[in-house]
Amino acid sequence: MNALLAQSVLIAGAWRAAKMSGTFHAENPATGEVSAEEYPVSCWEDCSDMLDAAVEAAVELRGVERSRLGAFLNCVADRIEARSEEIVAMAHQETGLAVAPRLSKGELPRTVNQLRQAATEASEGSWVRATIDTQAPVRSMYAPIGPVCVFGPNNFPLAFNGVAGGDFAAAIAAGNPVIAKAHPSHPGTTRMLAEEVHSAALESGLPAGTFQMMYHLSVEDGFRLVADKRLGATSFTGSRSAGLALKARADAAGKPIYLELSSLNPVIVLPGALEERASEIAQELANSCLAEVGQMCTSPKLIVLVAGERAEQFIREVEAIEASRPTMPMLSSGVLRSLDTNVKSLVAAGCDVIAGAKVVDGPGYRYANTLLRVSGEKFLANSAALQTEAFGTAATFVVASDVAQLLAILSSLEGNLTGCIYSSKSAVDDGAYREVEMRLRPLVGRLLNDKVPTGVAVSSAMNHGGPYPATGHPGFTSVGIPASLLRFAALQCYDNVREERLPAELRDKNPNSSMWRFIDREWTRADVGAA
Amino acid sequence: MNALLAQSVLIAGAWRAAKMSGTFHAENPATGEVSAEEYPVSCWEDCSDMLDAAVEAAVELRGVERSRLGAFLNCVADRIEARSEEIVAMAHQETGLAVAPRLSKGELPRTVNQLRQAATEASEGSWVRATIDTQAPVRSMYAPIGPVCVFGPNNFPLAFNGVAGGDFAAAIAAGNPVIAKAHPSHPGTTRMLAEEVHSAALESGLPAGTFQMMYHLSVEDGFRLVADKRLGATSFTGSRSAGLALKARADAAGKPIYLELSSLNPVIVLPGALEERASEIAQELANSCLAEVGQMCTSPKLIVLVAGERAEQFIREVEAIEASRPTMPMLSSGVLRSLDTNVKSLVAAGCDVIAGAKVVDGPGYRYANTLLRVSGEKFLANSAALQTEAFGTAATFVVASDVAQLLAILSSLEGNLTGCIYSSKSAVDDGAYREVEMRLRPLVGRLLNDKVPTGVAVSSAMNHGGPYPATGHPGFTSVGIPASLLRFAALQCYDNVREERLPAELRDKNPNSSMWRFIDREWTRADVGAA
Repeated sequence: MNALLAQSVLIAGAWRAAKMSGTFHAENPATGEVSAEEYPVSCWEDCSDMLDAAVEAAVELRGVERSRLGAFLNCVADRIEARSEEIVAMAHQETGLAVAPRLSKGELPRTVNQLRQAATEASEGSWVRATIDTQAPVRSMYAPIGPVCVFGPNNFPLAFNGVAGGDFAAAIAAGNPVIAKAHPSHPGTTRMLAEEVHSAALESGLPAGTFQMMYHLSVEDGFRLVADKRLGATSFTGSRSAGLALKARADAAGKPIYLELSSLNPVIVLPGALEERASEIAQELANSCLAEVGQMCTSPKLIVLVAGERAEQFIREVEAIEASRPTMPMLSSGVLRSLDTNVKSLVAAGCDVIAGAKVVDGPGYRYANTLLRVSGEKFLANSAALQTEAFGTAATFVVASDVAQLLAILSSLEGNLTGCIYSSKSAVDDGAYREVEMRLRPLVGRLLNDKVPTGVAVSSAMNHGGPYPATGHPGFTSVGIPASLLRFAALQCYDNVREERLPAELRDKNPNSSMWRFIDREWTRADVGAA
Repeated sequence: MNALLAQSVLIAGAWRAAKMSGTFHAENPATGEVSAEEYPVSCWEDCSDMLDAAVEAAVELRGVERSRLGAFLNCVADRIEARSEEIVAMAHQETGLAVAPRLSKGELPRTVNQLRQAATEASEGSWVRATIDTQAPVRSMYAPIGPVCVFGPNNFPLAFNGVAGGDFAAAIAAGNPVIAKAHPSHPGTTRMLAEEVHSAALESGLPAGTFQMMYHLSVEDGFRLVADKRLGATSFTGSRSAGLALKARADAAGKPIYLELSSLNPVIVLPGALEERASEIAQELANSCLAEVGQMCTSPKLIVLVAGERAEQFIREVEAIEASRPTMPMLSSGVLRSLDTNVKSLVAAGCDVIAGAKVVDGPGYRYANTLLRVSGEKFLANSAALQTEAFGTAATFVVASDVAQLLAILSSLEGNLTGCIYSSKSAVDDGAYREVEMRLRPLVGRLLNDKVPTGVAVSSAMNHGGPYPATGHPGFTSVGIPASLLRFAALQCYDNVREERLPAELRDKNPNSSMWRFIDREWTRADVGAA
């Protein structure tokens, strides 16, 4: 391989030619056109060099003031904003996602907003939950876990990018170096983001290994990376198969790994809601199913109804709305292929096709807006296969014979990121709601009322997580600051340690007057011993 | 098998004959005498029945006021205190641990104290970290994770017992049913505790499956249990080999498992401290090594020194003190056998024997107080084998040639629960301290100064946890309330959910005025909207 032809990777504070096993090109999925740029597939040597530099950086970062981490994150945000037009254009070219509103009005501002929230949290430091017991010589806090490897997904080239996305922001705010693994479907976007992050790191005077980036690596090297002794933790957003394969390796090595995987995001529309406002809900739901060509982690893939004329009318309305909408290019040829395969699996498992279920002509990689249906009885008889995720614009109506069967269907579901219940504004659905909620609540990370699941607010109260297999652990969220930082932290206790040797967060004096601390089981911003 | 001869197990709210594959007896390790009582080894049918009952209880517990959980835990504490003499006598008989001070003055009051702290937390509820964002319709909190299976260890028949011990208290306080698996070395103690917990549950009117208990099960059924779909999470305190085998099964099924495993608890005595107060430290250290016959998770097993006459003198002092102390009976014949095997492994790996290293005559299962030594050079050449844990009164001095080698030794260590640094009261060790701390801090859950690691205060600021392989995840602690409750919780978000459908913790009004909540990123006990 001729390394000179390929883009450089960022290792130990410098752009350098990758030690590589091959190269790849990005594609414009809206046209099928291949970009001229060549990107390297890094060998283990690159990974190992990054790990070494990250370990060094992790030690140095312990001595860096938290306000400097905040300044770094703000600087990244400023730089991305300053270059936003170019970044958005590249992201559009590599993903087919609309420049506006999606990328320029939605994802880029969200990315910048996340970085700024993380900056505030990094500077304030309340997330460390400094805990002080004045009756014992013990004090504890969450501390950085060590180098964090972030695998970004294909569907959010900015907000969830391993570079400058939510996991990056959380890991850095928690004081950890980041090794970012770009998603190979948008390497150009990732390169631009990495250039800005790297410049911001230089400007902020952070250690060389604070931020590093590679474009691609082999599956085997990925397995090796997440299990490496030098690593602190991994976060991965992507497919269930890839995520669980990485999890098996990380688990065996005792390395924390946080996953955000597939999810069907069941939507239950109760009879009273159908009676009351079927058309309004059909509109909302169709919009949600088609949003971003169905390629969101929270896209609704399973709509559960109770059989009857209202349900049939509702299905026809959703069908009519979707039929009126154009097909849009998907993120890549690979995503299109997977969708087609998975829709065929659903049909083989018992679904009838209402609409779509086929690849359509280009330009780019397009699939017909797809609606499937299956009876509750059939679903219960084959619920594992019928929970195959078809990532893209394919949703399945499950029509239960009655509420009792609807409840049985819910009990057969795997863990999901979200679950929605539409119910009547009157009390008519209240009994069914309670029964549905009782079953759905433990199966989902976020429970919604009268609202579609797409759109994940960057709120301190957000949980973008959920029970396995939607994620690897039901106690963590990948969105929402400060909670998302806790993934990248170890609990550290100091027992009888001399005051001057304690980290600033645990000394008697509050280090910045804005940090919340848990002193004698009361939350306070006061110094220890203050009345 | 004749089930009528064996003790009953507690399933779904009733004592019943076990479905069993065999029976076992307890032994008095101080005498070798076998108790007359026969205890069952449960079959999978018992486990499965417990899981079914626990799932039902988990649903019902969602409707139970948190103050009732608190009352239940206080009732357990009261009942254990009322029966303390009998319980302590049985624990003494089954473990050989001293009635006083250990069991009656130490472990039993600690157990009761933990239960009462958990009761307070259960009632107050601040641990759920109710998070409210008034600018968005999202609210979130930690909620019960589902049935928790607790595997108790052999070395704390009361405070860490699966019945009424710390994990039990944390799981119940977090609102989860508990399936307790007794340690087979103290079934009689466990039975008494279970009787009291069961009576307390009846008195408190809790669901039948809130607390269940079995005495023993096969290895294969243990694997099946921790991976069962019906289970929420597992906590396990015990040996590394058993813990990691369970972890592999739980991980593969995506079920959280919290482990508290072996630990060498390195103690570093810096040259200035030796110069200043070697005799005092020798006394403390010998006491710590011999405490509870070296059978504590925090017993110091590795003492790291810099070579020199002071170090030699220090080693001789520790040796002299230990030589003056009688050998004591160990917890069981199995623990004695393991110790002998592991000491032999350490010697084979390069340790020299200073004292002991042999089984001694009874009554009961006794091992000579044992001290080993190895040079820093040898340690570095074979550090994995030389980190074999020898659970019992065996500690190894690692004598480094200089501070630089001492630092290299620290860098070769695995994760541990604790790490101690003794340094001079003057500034003479300050430079070395910084270098040692930098390496030791990320490797241990609790860092101590000038203090032995044995003795784990039940404090809100305690961390009884640490990096793998001391535990399975560095972010959690098994001691310390409220932090220990977070192991048994799932993060749950409510998006646009109608006020009257929200859990009490997330409604505008603070449910009990004492619950801390995180509203708009400020901790407060006020209602939403209060000035």
